[in-house]
Amino acid sequence: MAIRVTVWNEGRHEQINEEVRRVYPEGIHGAIANHLLTQGMKVRTATLDEPEHGLTDEVLADTDVLIWWAHIAHHEVSDEVVDKVYQRVLDGMGLIVLHSGHFSKIFRKLMGTTCDLKWREIGEKERLWVVEPGHPIAEGIGEYIELPNTEMYGERFDIPAPDTLVFISWFAGGEVFRSGCCYHRGRGKIFYFRPGHETFPIFHNKDIQRVLTNAVRWAAPVDGPVPRFGHHPEPLEKFEG
Amino acid sequence: MAIRVTVWNEGRHEQINEEVRRVYPEGIHGAIANHLLTQGMKVRTATLDEPEHGLTDEVLADTDVLIWWAHIAHHEVSDEVVDKVYQRVLDGMGLIVLHSGHFSKIFRKLMGTTCDLKWREIGEKERLWVVEPGHPIAEGIGEYIELPNTEMYGERFDIPAPDTLVFISWFAGGEVFRSGCCYHRGRGKIFYFRPGHETFPIFHNKDIQRVLTNAVRWAAPVDGPVPRFGHHPEPLEKFEG
Amino acid sequence: MAIRVTVWNEGRHEQINEEVRRVYPEGIHGAIANHLLTQGMKVRTATLDEPEHGLTDEVLADTDVLIWWAHIAHHEVSDEVVDKVYQRVLDGMGLIVLHSGHFSKIFRKLMGTTCDLKWREIGEKERLWVVEPGHPIAEGIGEYIELPNTEMYGERFDIPAPDTLVFISWFAGGEVFRSGCCYHRGRGKIFYFRPGHETFPIFHNKDIQRVLTNAVRWAAPVDGPVPRFGHHPEPLEKFEG
Amino acid sequence: MAIRVTVWNEGRHEQINEEVRRVYPEGIHGAIANHLLTQGMKVRTATLDEPEHGLTDEVLADTDVLIWWAHIAHHEVSDEVVDKVYQRVLDGMGLIVLHSGHFSKIFRKLMGTTCDLKWREIGEKERLWVVEPGHPIAEGIGEYIELPNTEMYGERFDIPAPDTLVFISWFAGGEVFRSGCCYHRGRGKIFYFRPGHETFPIFHNKDIQRVLTNAVRWAAPVDGPVPRFGHHPEPLEKFEG
Repeated sequence: MAIRVTVWNEGRHEQINEEVRRVYPEGIHGAIANHLLTQGMKVRTATLDEPEHGLTDEVLADTDVLIWWAHIAHHEVSDEVVDKVYQRVLDGMGLIVLHSGHFSKIFRKLMGTTCDLKWREIGEKERLWVVEPGHPIAEGIGEYIELPNTEMYGERFDIPAPDTLVFISWFAGGEVFRSGCCYHRGRGKIFYFRPGHETFPIFHNKDIQRVLTNAVRWAAPVDGPVPRFGHHPEPLEKFEG
Repeated sequence: MAIRVTVWNEGRHEQINEEVRRVYPEGIHGAIANHLLTQGMKVRTATLDEPEHGLTDEVLADTDVLIWWAHIAHHEVSDEVVDKVYQRVLDGMGLIVLHSGHFSKIFRKLMGTTCDLKWREIGEKERLWVVEPGHPIAEGIGEYIELPNTEMYGERFDIPAPDTLVFISWFAGGEVFRSGCCYHRGRGKIFYFRPGHETFPIFHNKDIQRVLTNAVRWAAPVDGPVPRFGHHPEPLEKFEG
Repeated sequence: MAIRVTVWNEGRHEQINEEVRRVYPEGIHGAIANHLLTQGMKVRTATLDEPEHGLTDEVLADTDVLIWWAHIAHHEVSDEVVDKVYQRVLDGMGLIVLHSGHFSKIFRKLMGTTCDLKWREIGEKERLWVVEPGHPIAEGIGEYIELPNTEMYGERFDIPAPDTLVFISWFAGGEVFRSGCCYHRGRGKIFYFRPGHETFPIFHNKDIQRVLTNAVRWAAPVDGPVPRFGHHPEPLEKFEG
Repeated sequence: MAIRVTVWNEGRHEQINEEVRRVYPEGIHGAIANHLLTQGMKVRTATLDEPEHGLTDEVLADTDVLIWWAHIAHHEVSDEVVDKVYQRVLDGMGLIVLHSGHFSKIFRKLMGTTCDLKWREIGEKERLWVVEPGHPIAEGIGEYIELPNTEMYGERFDIPAPDTLVFISWFAGGEVFRSGCCYHRGRGKIFYFRPGHETFPIFHNKDIQRVLTNAVRWAAPVDGPVPRFGHHPEPLEKFEG
């Protein structure tokens, strides 16, 4: 059965910046969605300025994996929607957080840390090295992905140590970054992926698209146990208490 | 230099329950503090009903490791105090969360998950097995700690997988639990330790006391780097951009 | 494309013990293979007493996931075959080590530790609790798997902390055990799964069979990068050295 | 009580290369030992060409932490000595493996992988970024350590994912490397630290010396439980079997 993906985009850069529109005529969400549609997935998009940011109960219930891109309006995302997304992730929905989404309310809430970092925007070269070559998110990728012009993100990246670290970035200007980070949280899986600036055409890069495909498949829910929490007054076993 | 410990206790059970007062005449905080004082530490206590819950800026600034016991009044802890403790942990203060503190605001905020679990209160036997015998928190402990009568906490414990898992509990009634969990968050270290009921005299147990001592030493801040976040417009290296 | 599985079994218990033959008329390998055949996999078996233990270069090259059951003849497995299997795992072949396979040469070589443990054989009850419910190996499983009669394995299990811990076992006699352990090693993935005694009919249990199916799918190779090691005299980037 | 450190050095470069002798007049082992002596530790050295490589039973029994530097003669280290060191690590002795020691028999045996990597020797710049600033091995270090001229080691580094990753290196020529890796194995702790070439004067660098001091303290044995493995015929608990 096709994985149901919702690509969420803040969508503000596209409204105010012609260069962004030229790079992403259908928006960042449109570019990502168009790629995933070619991978046999069932894809919808949603943006900040839609009612409930496009993330109604119905949409969330119908989403296996949510992709999140945002940058300049994190504070405009309503806490109510964040709480719903949070609950869905803990219930098993996959979440892929891209680039400047590191500072989104939902990512910070799930990580429990500030998710702060260093940044610089001079279009320097980035090279994402695969450090876990047997991981499904590295399928079809070479030893590294090279991006000729990117915004730099540098350590210290204030996150919990990932359950699995898949990519480490090298930047021409002298920094490194944990760029592909896998987490289990509740019954859900989260992948943070660093690349993805609004004017550098990152999401048109074939390797980046491949990682997104892989990450969606990895993050898709599994039909595992639903824990029953709370009071269990009866022991499972008899014993001499 | 002596490690500066603040033992925080909700302190409500002691007010309303004579049995708790009998087991812990000086409160749970008093029992823990009295033990740590014998270990060469500088110890103070603080409780919910003090102004600012006893956790003023001065107290927090003067604390290397904060111990947290709470149970029935998590919701009464002010968000402002929680935010201050949170910031101090990310800045390097150690945090030791005991037993029912799993549901405290501060622990949930730092974990990013619900921290929910199963529980049962019939006084069954618990055995905490050491699974990482080279870890400093296991110093002086045998292969397991046996507690003849405890409240049961059972998996699924809804936490992020610990950076290091030190103890796994066995319960007579049929459950298991990840009972000693180490985390790095920001520049701080967190240890969750399961035992510690208000009427079972857990904190008088020598092994439990030893674990508390070890955990304080492990969680004490180190003088590591203070990351500088944000905009770094100048690259560290010159390159042909 | 169907996953190619080779089920390897020492196969000695079946020769010398009628009870084992009654429980597993086609051998332990036969029971496992028969189940996996129903899951759309391409399955072959191999045993210790075949030439090269049935693990010729051709067989290994044609294997995506190797399942390993062994108990009383670990020392009879030739180092040459172990080295070939080891190399194949690092090259990407999945490896699933069952029960007493913990003491096999191949598992110890890959773990770098003794893989020793406690054991007892009185047919006590085991309950395997799922502690990572979003993991694909837990798909289709309830909160726990109950086995009414098993051999006990108890901590300390002398292994490296798993990359992901999926199951923790409870035993009636008082022990716990990390029973489902995932590892990345080289380009390969390894899953250690505790259950599987030769006379208790563990491999006829539907939940155990489901875990085996899940584990094979999880451990199957991905087409990730093939690292090029060694001397790289030319820098990828020009710099002012 | 003073930590007892044995600094082991292959010691061959010093015999055949005048430049090495100029940089390290007392050998690499001498330089490291001289530093650690200033830190209140009890230090001895041992080298390959001594009887039993200087690692007799008495020396190993009297060692809390063993530091290992080697490069061109890994194959000359006797398997018997490797087995003794291995056993001591599993029994609790700390082990710090430096630079080209990644290819030593003892490190490969403990890791269970090839420990292979990329390398280049053109004296390029390295910057070791701290990614876990609350870890004791980062004490007294800034956000990064800069080495103006080093040998490059690049990913893919074929190791198990470290229990804790403390440093990631950036190299001018375009690579990254997991340069500070912590492991628990058995009751012992292992730290792999990348810097340390024989002619670049790495071990005279104050930050590198500080990391060595920290690592020795972190890796020193703790008096934790000694697991009893094997047959435990009697259950700890009575139950209705």
